[in-house]
Amino acid sequence: MDPGTLIGIGLALGAVFVSMIMEGGNPASIILPPPLMLVFLGTFGVAMAGGKLKDFTGAMASLKTAFLAAPVADDETIANIVTFADKARREGLLALEEAARSVEDPFLRKGIELAVDGTDPDELREILEAEIASKKAADKVSVKMFNDMGAYGPTIGIIGTVLGLIHVLENLSEPDKLGHLIAGAFVATLWGVLSANVFWFPISKKLDRMASVEAKHMELVLEGVTSIQAGANPRVVEQKLLSFLPPAERAAAAEAAGEAQAA
Amino acid sequence: MDPGTLIGIGLALGAVFVSMIMEGGNPASIILPPPLMLVFLGTFGVAMAGGKLKDFTGAMASLKTAFLAAPVADDETIANIVTFADKARREGLLALEEAARSVEDPFLRKGIELAVDGTDPDELREILEAEIASKKAADKVSVKMFNDMGAYGPTIGIIGTVLGLIHVLENLSEPDKLGHLIAGAFVATLWGVLSANVFWFPISKKLDRMASVEAKHMELVLEGVTSIQAGANPRVVEQKLLSFLPPAERAAAAEAAGEAQAA
Amino acid sequence: MDPGTLIGIGLALGAVFVSMIMEGGNPASIILPPPLMLVFLGTFGVAMAGGKLKDFTGAMASLKTAFLAAPVADDETIANIVTFADKARREGLLALEEAARSVEDPFLRKGIELAVDGTDPDELREILEAEIASKKAADKVSVKMFNDMGAYGPTIGIIGTVLGLIHVLENLSEPDKLGHLIAGAFVATLWGVLSANVFWFPISKKLDRMASVEAKHMELVLEGVTSIQAGANPRVVEQKLLSFLPPAERAAAAEAAGEAQAA
Amino acid sequence: MDPGTLIGIGLALGAVFVSMIMEGGNPASIILPPPLMLVFLGTFGVAMAGGKLKDFTGAMASLKTAFLAAPVADDETIANIVTFADKARREGLLALEEAARSVEDPFLRKGIELAVDGTDPDELREILEAEIASKKAADKVSVKMFNDMGAYGPTIGIIGTVLGLIHVLENLSEPDKLGHLIAGAFVATLWGVLSANVFWFPISKKLDRMASVEAKHMELVLEGVTSIQAGANPRVVEQKLLSFLPPAERAAAAEAAGEAQAA
Amino acid sequence: MDPGTLIGIGLALGAVFVSMIMEGGNPASIILPPPLMLVFLGTFGVAMAGGKLKDFTGAMASLKTAFLAAPVADDETIANIVTFADKARREGLLALEEAARSVEDPFLRKGIELAVDGTDPDELREILEAEIASKKAADKVSVKMFNDMGAYGPTIGIIGTVLGLIHVLENLSEPDKLGHLIAGAFVATLWGVLSANVFWFPISKKLDRMASVEAKHMELVLEGVTSIQAGANPRVVEQKLLSFLPPAERAAAAEAAGEAQAA
Repeated sequence: MDPGTLIGIGLALGAVFVSMIMEGGNPASIILPPPLMLVFLGTFGVAMAGGKLKDFTGAMASLKTAFLAAPVADDETIANIVTFADKARREGLLALEEAARSVEDPFLRKGIELAVDGTDPDELREILEAEIASKKAADKVSVKMFNDMGAYGPTIGIIGTVLGLIHVLENLSEPDKLGHLIAGAFVATLWGVLSANVFWFPISKKLDRMASVEAKHMELVLEGVTSIQAGANPRVVEQKLLSFLPPAERAAAAEAAGEAQAA
Repeated sequence: MDPGTLIGIGLALGAVFVSMIMEGGNPASIILPPPLMLVFLGTFGVAMAGGKLKDFTGAMASLKTAFLAAPVADDETIANIVTFADKARREGLLALEEAARSVEDPFLRKGIELAVDGTDPDELREILEAEIASKKAADKVSVKMFNDMGAYGPTIGIIGTVLGLIHVLENLSEPDKLGHLIAGAFVATLWGVLSANVFWFPISKKLDRMASVEAKHMELVLEGVTSIQAGANPRVVEQKLLSFLPPAERAAAAEAAGEAQAA
Repeated sequence: MDPGTLIGIGLALGAVFVSMIMEGGNPASIILPPPLMLVFLGTFGVAMAGGKLKDFTGAMASLKTAFLAAPVADDETIANIVTFADKARREGLLALEEAARSVEDPFLRKGIELAVDGTDPDELREILEAEIASKKAADKVSVKMFNDMGAYGPTIGIIGTVLGLIHVLENLSEPDKLGHLIAGAFVATLWGVLSANVFWFPISKKLDRMASVEAKHMELVLEGVTSIQAGANPRVVEQKLLSFLPPAERAAAAEAAGEAQAA
Repeated sequence: MDPGTLIGIGLALGAVFVSMIMEGGNPASIILPPPLMLVFLGTFGVAMAGGKLKDFTGAMASLKTAFLAAPVADDETIANIVTFADKARREGLLALEEAARSVEDPFLRKGIELAVDGTDPDELREILEAEIASKKAADKVSVKMFNDMGAYGPTIGIIGTVLGLIHVLENLSEPDKLGHLIAGAFVATLWGVLSANVFWFPISKKLDRMASVEAKHMELVLEGVTSIQAGANPRVVEQKLLSFLPPAERAAAAEAAGEAQAA
Repeated sequence: MDPGTLIGIGLALGAVFVSMIMEGGNPASIILPPPLMLVFLGTFGVAMAGGKLKDFTGAMASLKTAFLAAPVADDETIANIVTFADKARREGLLALEEAARSVEDPFLRKGIELAVDGTDPDELREILEAEIASKKAADKVSVKMFNDMGAYGPTIGIIGTVLGLIHVLENLSEPDKLGHLIAGAFVATLWGVLSANVFWFPISKKLDRMASVEAKHMELVLEGVTSIQAGANPRVVEQKLLSFLPPAERAAAAEAAGEAQAA
């Protein structure tokens, strides 16, 4: 689990409320039901209207990915692939049949199974590439959904504030209530801007980041499976797969792969 | 029919009016003919001016697609294609002539007919790809039209508000009417922002989403038809077409295709 | 002629002035020479400064295209090309020499002439593709010029309003004139936003749309000419060219091409 | 020299100051040292911080290109290339050695020299293409620098205005100075918006336009040199190069090339 | 070291504070703990929430690159590669084994080592290209992180200002404190806009620029190593590598490479 999103949102919310208290304000003054309902229900509504109903429920389900962000073990996968390449070279592709069953990563397992089944190399590459493309397209729908919510949030907030100001302007006869009413009108803008920048945009960016991490992992698996199928030299496979990693992770992964091969 | 757009717009409009009533406002106060006419007619006018007249009427006609969003049955299509691939392999391409007539999807029917007619594989692919490209280009015109309306809406609203404020500033001599006049001026901005964010942008995004769903469906059909023509193994065809689906729909579609083949 | 732009701009201007009169305002109050001069001359100046002098005069000349929008007769062109393909197949390419002279579309005429002259197919394609690319690049210059004017308009208007407010703030000693002066200051913003959204952006979008319609027409001609040169079957040529059309225009064009061939 | 940028900026500045005088304002009231220093030094500073020091000095040096815009003589270059193609065909590539020396355009000269030296055609194309790519990348740095300045200008101006308003709000005890102080605060926004829209954005766009004109010229030269090296027919070379020009310049250039060949 | 970022940020901050002092303001009046904490902690929080925790710490570590910007010695590298190409041509690839050890640039060293080890040319190119792609992807994460911070800064500032204004509006009963309170509310916007435009955006752009300079350097090395492996003529290698440099650096680098070859 990557705690970045939880820590980050907590930090930002903390900064908002602590600064408010330091200034002598009362956090309760911004917890007003009408603007809260308007901003959150309104944002959910227009975001939902811009896609299929299932896109919206899918985006809500992907919140788990944004907050938990299960780690992607590129180094372990490389070590596995190098071991498989070694085994396939010495004992033939069929020797991987049993080993494949114990692989937890479903995409790597599917790739090895297709190779063991004797699928044509071009067809195997096409199938795995189409799966990567479908995964990317599906992830993009959720990323866009939260990004749209970030774009709609402040404008829904402004609708609330303009409505509030119109209400104020038509009731100028009670000047001692004006300050309170105008303050209330601004609370909608506040929640619109805050929800967009503290919730929706960061969640959209985190989902985008995780989607790219996972897509890169699948591309690494694809490269590895086609190399195993082609009977490539395990040392060359390792070197090629390592060059897919970010420079900072390469040394540690190289070590892990070396150990796996020695074992 | 996908109810996302109807539910979403209803939810957002509900949030606006309920929050207004909760604050003690009167929804009738924002139903003023001059700003309503300015914002809606003005937005329609400038959107229409940015394209051919037929682009505008076409966009209005596509509202049906946005609200009804007829479902695209990828799973059923895959099942059909796998059955056809099986039949073509056993009895030859000509055996599909009769089967093709009962196909409801016009693009699949056309593809099968072209294959049965003995069209050259490269030419068949070119013709179907050009149809997909024309469909995408035509859909994009409507998507852009509503997106333009979303961009123009708030600025037309601001024109109304500035006009209103100029009117107010030239009539400062009647201070007791000022509040009412300024409130009226802001109603134009309100409708500009509201129409853009509750109607035009969500409709544009929904049309874009449906266009991409339909284009993906056509690409799946193209892939299926060329595989049938090439006499590919039905099991491989199925596996390839399934990899085009979003991960979440793959299991259900695989089952449907399996049943079709067994039947 | 496509009346979309004329009707659209008329509708939008009408909405502005009618709503103004409905509110009791006087349209003459926004016809002030200083802000009008600032906004229009200023916008023209900065747009001109961002390109070559000839780019600006070319953009002004393209206003005719935006407002008149001569129709592009794809259906007629397809009918012509199918007839030519038929003739070329039966009587040889040279038989098109005379027929080409009566073709009004200069691009189709040039293509046929190059083919009749015995130009190498690859070279013919390269020459026609380069002409399409040059046409697109030249059109884009005018599209960008009006788009820039749309982006500059409101900011030039804001410059006028800030200048006006500075003037007001330095003359606070005459409070009874204040309303009038502030109203005047806002007129610059009004014209900046109005000119951008009612004139420049719609014109830019219309030019972009016409450029894409014309480019698509030229691509259709290119495809047709290379098919004629290759001696393709007229029925296949027709089917391929029809697949370039938007779905909604395909049926009518198919009929036109059928009649031409029968004649 | 193309006077577009000089005339355009002059026109825009003139519109600003004349409209100011027409409104009864005094241009001297916006020539205040603190906001001028803040906006210009601040914009230069943050633009400089976003690149290498040499990027900034290079951008300043490219101002000459923006204002003078030396003409690019595509027609003359085509005439030259057609003459060279003719000579090379009749007397061999080596015959161009002397002629190349008198060519003013350094890129054309280098191309001819490489061809005369017997460089491998693929290598010649790679070298010239890499030079075009390097030229484009270098030009883009200056274009981005001025575009960044256009984006920073108004925000630096807003910083100045907010600072000014904070100063005003803390000195509310002297109400008769308020108007003057607030007016002064707005001068920073004025210069921020004005500098961005009258100087930085137009300069950035002009540099971008000149870079694209020059890149297109280099691509035309590349096409011409490789055609000469391949011993192509001068008439075909002419036709191909003419198709690279904007439609409006083609007729004049065709004439110039015809004359050159006849001479 | 390139001092652009340090000088630029210093210049901008200096312009802000000097203009403030010239206007008679007191810089201490904007050093208020609540808005400073809100803007900086809030921006860090939401930026962190939009990625993996390691992305944020990596971005912070890349600040060193932004401020120090170690120079990339393209000219020296070209001279080295030309010398190696010469040696490899005369004495064979193995002769580079010892020379490679003294190369400081790790990417060039790795490339030479792979070539000396007899790696297949296609595989060598794939490995080095994958390393360039991984480097670019890793750099982009930090560039985006600071760009996000630049986008969040002003909106977090606006949250602070709206919170402050709500607080003011609910305490209208003490009018003599109002000016001070409103001034305090604006300080949050000030720091939001200032931090974005003086720190985060310039740092993001500088990192982007350095990433592109380093990527271009790696591409030059890749081109050089594959040329050495292919046994290309050193003079041609030099000419090709020089065409990768910006026009302004080409002459100096050509001289350096000439000297190296002569030595």
